[in-house]
Order: sequence, then structure tokens, then C-alpha cells
Amino acid sequence: MNQEVESTPREKVVVVLSGGMDSAVLLSHLAAQGHPLKAVSFNYGQRHVRELDSAARLATAAGVEHTIADLRGLTPLFGANSLSDLSVPVPEGHYAEESMKLTIVPNRNMIMLASAIAWAISSQFDAVAYGAHSGDHAIYPDCRPEFADAMSAASLLCDWKPIRLMRPFVQFDKGQIVALGHDLKTPFELTWTCYQGGEKHCGKCGSCTERQEAFAQAGVVDPVAYV
Amino acid sequence: MNQEVESTPREKVVVVLSGGMDSAVLLSHLAAQGHPLKAVSFNYGQRHVRELDSAARLATAAGVEHTIADLRGLTPLFGANSLSDLSVPVPEGHYAEESMKLTIVPNRNMIMLASAIAWAISSQFDAVAYGAHSGDHAIYPDCRPEFADAMSAASLLCDWKPIRLMRPFVQFDKGQIVALGHDLKTPFELTWTCYQGGEKHCGKCGSCTERQEAFAQAGVVDPVAYV
Repeated sequence: MNQEVESTPREKVVVVLSGGMDSAVLLSHLAAQGHPLKAVSFNYGQRHVRELDSAARLATAAGVEHTIADLRGLTPLFGANSLSDLSVPVPEGHYAEESMKLTIVPNRNMIMLASAIAWAISSQFDAVAYGAHSGDHAIYPDCRPEFADAMSAASLLCDWKPIRLMRPFVQFDKGQIVALGHDLKTPFELTWTCYQGGEKHCGKCGSCTERQEAFAQAGVVDPVAYV
Repeated sequence: MNQEVESTPREKVVVVLSGGMDSAVLLSHLAAQGHPLKAVSFNYGQRHVRELDSAARLATAAGVEHTIADLRGLTPLFGANSLSDLSVPVPEGHYAEESMKLTIVPNRNMIMLASAIAWAISSQFDAVAYGAHSGDHAIYPDCRPEFADAMSAASLLCDWKPIRLMRPFVQFDKGQIVALGHDLKTPFELTWTCYQGGEKHCGKCGSCTERQEAFAQAGVVDPVAYV
């Protein structure tokens, strides 16, 4: 890619940056394409709040403006779940297990996208990007492609200037995302994945299990420390 | 309506209750239909925050559980506007005027609906209702019917159990809403409309102007006090 001879203006993009590996690669990917970027992360009372530190460091490393929006005022609407209610224990093992449904914050993706779109509008940006991928789980209804399509339609209509929703990894699995991040030199050592939010990654929760499988699939060494 | 012989279960509905006249009538309307209800209001740093007191009083009068969700953590995403930024003066006169665009909070409806839907999901409710009506303004893109249709589609897909978006006033103008509220004995004296948020309604802002026209059209005396 030769940025010097690029003549068409790139879309300005607000990136939803969780601090995990998918959105870290998304940031690298859009930066490599030359898009002017801003990044937004959300504090919704998650137990693994240290992912927000990771998000801030990833944005700094990429030279991108970063804002943490605080959704904790919505906690009374969420009900009991293990991500935002510390009295509910984090289940271990694979996402496929029934117990993983406890990790759901209701309607999280719609709330985050709606908020990121608001920032795109007030910033006179063109698009919002997020790291939806083909491996998103059957237990997360708001990761379904048909949900994303409906949100895309709403996003094009919520303001006079359409805001485009970008999901460049929608055909990728997590192993392919790791491989792309490896090529783009994504600083994986800055990312945070574990739902437990301890000093090191626990290596046991559904989120850690998936991360380890993705790095193994890509044949890339995961630089983060595990318990 | 005879509730005693009602045999089909009514949908349980979360009502988006601003504290203004439209949502007040919406609450009366759904209560009269026998729906189990909860009401949610949003603090997004609006200048006319006293509408939240009106919302609480309307919910109490209707015997409905009420929660105020706090969206002020999103203020950094909104940019400058007269509703949430006290340094921007409230424009006077009709909504049709260009200056009224200053009253826009970007993507407000998507954010509020997304949040209300989250509460419907965690409450195992069936639907979210809001007071969209035919008079919603050309300056509010997120009041367009096609936007509402896209949000309805997203709402049916954001969880395994579909959440229905109800807009029973979509064919009504504000005069018709006042007439219905008059029939249903909606306590209009508890509502708050003015964007200025003073002791009494200013009678000059776009919101007051519209309210006065609606009551005049319906031939109903507005019980609130004006400056």
C-alpha cells in the first residue's frame, strides 16, 4: 500500500475498542489502510475493567484519540449477570456451555454501537467500525449477522448524513484475526482478554480458552502472561 | 374495557417516559389497555432536567415502577448542543427554524431505545413503547418512520426472545394525542415540556410553542403555568 499516492479521501472512522485482541487488530487494520481514526471504549461496570487500560494503551501506541464512555448509569437496567454484577461468579470452560449465558449484558452491542454512532455524528466522522467476526457465539444473539444488518440500516438513517457500520472481520475467524494482527504488528502484548480481570490471564474462562485456541490456530506465540 | 374477562395475556411493556405530554398520554393509553408496565426516563445532562421529576410523578400517579437511567457518562460523545451543554443558549420560536437544530443530541433515540430494550430483556418483558408521532420534526432524523422500522427490526433480533417496538401514536398528531389524553384523564398538570427548565414553562421555546398549539387544536385547557 502506498499512502503517498493515495488521492481519494479515506472515511473517518470511530473504532469500538474493547482492549481485546479482535478490536486491537481492527485498529491496526484501519490505521494501515490510512483511515483517520478515533477510538471509544465502554465502562459498563465489567469485572474485567482492566481491559480499559489495555484499550488506552493500544490507542496511545497507534497515536489515536481515545475516549472511555461510562455506561454505568445503565447498570440498573441490566439485571444480574457475571460481567457487570460482581456477586455472580464467572463460569469456566467453553462458551458453548449453558453457564456462559451468564456473561451476557443485555443488548450490549446495540447500546455500544448507538453510543459510538453518536460520537461519529458529533465528530462529523463517516463510519463506526467494530470487530464482529464469524466466530461470534451462538449464545450472543446480538452478534448475529442479521442483527448487524438491521443496525447498519438504522445507522444509515439516524442522522441526515448516513453513518456506515464497518465489520471488516465478519468473514474471519479468530485464528485469521490473529494471523492478520501478526502481519500488521498489532501489539498483542497490550491486549486484555480474560473475563476474570486478575493480574494475569486466568487461562480458564471462555474468553481465555478462545484466545489460546486462536493463537494456536494461527501458529503465533501469545505474548500475554497466563496464571 | 372489562379486565375481569380478559383472557389473553397482555404484553409486558417498558415505556420510555420523558415527562412530556406525549409519553404521559402513552402511559395512560397502555395502562388503560391493561398492559403490565414499567417506565424508564433518561438523564443525559439535559438543561430541562426537571422533566425527570415530572416523569417520576407521572409514574407514581399511574402506579408504575420507574427508573431513571443516567446517560451522562456519554456526554463526551455528544459534542456541543443546547440540550446538554449549558453554554449554548436555547433558541426560541418554531422548530422549523434552522437554529432549532442546536437542540439535537446526536443519536438520542437509538441510545434511549437500546437502553430501554436492555431493561425489557433483563425484566423478561415483551416490548418497548415510545411516543413517536406524525408531527415529529423534519429536523430530527431519528424520528423518521424508516429509522423506526430499522430499529424495530434490530429489536426483534437483539435477543433470542424478540422485543417488539410499539409506536401506537405514529399516525397521531400532537393535537390528537392531547384529545386522547383528555379522554383518558392523563394528569397533564404533572407534565413538563419546556426546554428552558425554569420555574414555569417559558411559552417561547419550540417545545412550548408546539404544546400550546396542540392544546389549542384539541380544544383542551393546558393546566400548566406559563411565564
